[in-house]
Amino acid sequence: MSRQSNRTTDSKKMNSELFTLTYGALVTQLCKDYENDEEVNKQLDKMGYNIGVRLIEDFLARSTIGRCQDFRETADVIAKVAFKMYLGITPSVTNWSPAGDEFSLILENNPLVDFVELPDNHNTLIYSNLLCGVLRGALEMVQMAVDVRFAQDTLRGDNVTEIRMKFIKRIEENLPAGDE
Amino acid sequence: MSRQSNRTTDSKKMNSELFTLTYGALVTQLCKDYENDEEVNKQLDKMGYNIGVRLIEDFLARSTIGRCQDFRETADVIAKVAFKMYLGITPSVTNWSPAGDEFSLILENNPLVDFVELPDNHNTLIYSNLLCGVLRGALEMVQMAVDVRFAQDTLRGDNVTEIRMKFIKRIEENLPAGDE
Repeated sequence: MSRQSNRTTDSKKMNSELFTLTYGALVTQLCKDYENDEEVNKQLDKMGYNIGVRLIEDFLARSTIGRCQDFRETADVIAKVAFKMYLGITPSVTNWSPAGDEFSLILENNPLVDFVELPDNHNTLIYSNLLCGVLRGALEMVQMAVDVRFAQDTLRGDNVTEIRMKFIKRIEENLPAGDE
Repeated sequence: MSRQSNRTTDSKKMNSELFTLTYGALVTQLCKDYENDEEVNKQLDKMGYNIGVRLIEDFLARSTIGRCQDFRETADVIAKVAFKMYLGITPSVTNWSPAGDEFSLILENNPLVDFVELPDNHNTLIYSNLLCGVLRGALEMVQMAVDVRFAQDTLRGDNVTEIRMKFIKRIEENLPAGDE
């Protein structure tokens, strides 16, 4: 599905439940389509990536946030602006590595799992893995290569949901085709 | 994925764009999985139905709305409360049949299609058909059998998006098993 060029930035605020259930339908469909949880996790990450590379433009237009000075500022913008905007929650930013290149987002309430229990035969499913892909894709579009993964998940019995983000490198801006 | 019994009714308000893009990923996946648009339309309706039968409980808990007196009241609740709550829009209710058993919801802005253009090879795809299933499923749980379909769709070049709803019958409440 390609993007319309004439869409506006007027926003519709909605409760999260229809999204939550629709996301559940997507994960259920992928579980039917792919042989094992690992493949489903990969697909969710890939779909999320494709969503992230498109969502970032909407985010920049809405938030009017410019280039972040450092990874700490990036972390704050993700938690306080982006998560708030698109999921209605504000994770806390914590567990910084000494080098300042890794942190965790702690989600006390992950709206994606509001109606969900993992069946026993899917105990390696990373149910909300789409979010990792979204973050990875969105950040790549602002020239940041990051590694994103779930470190803890309430769905698997952990007390909180923790997304771990690691800065890998700044991506050089692509030169326009023909200039290389 | 089964429903948790301990979830709360605290709500997260979110912008619609992540939902819109995730819905796009779902439709794209179904287009890969099924041979033709007709099958995809059917699957979207079926998924929507399963979502609707679960969403209604959340809706009744949140809206504290009781049983509607007639189909006109039902129409108003759907447009002004349910669509507002879960999609952030308020369709207009119009085109009543003389018998009062059919009406249309006119969506000036369908958030599901914000980023979408239908590719040429999917010109019979009813992209937002999940919504018909949601309405059908939700109303069935409050003992109303309805027929729901898209009559117009901006994605196919119509000026507005029109969902046509037809009352079929009131469903008798099921007796508890063993009492039959």
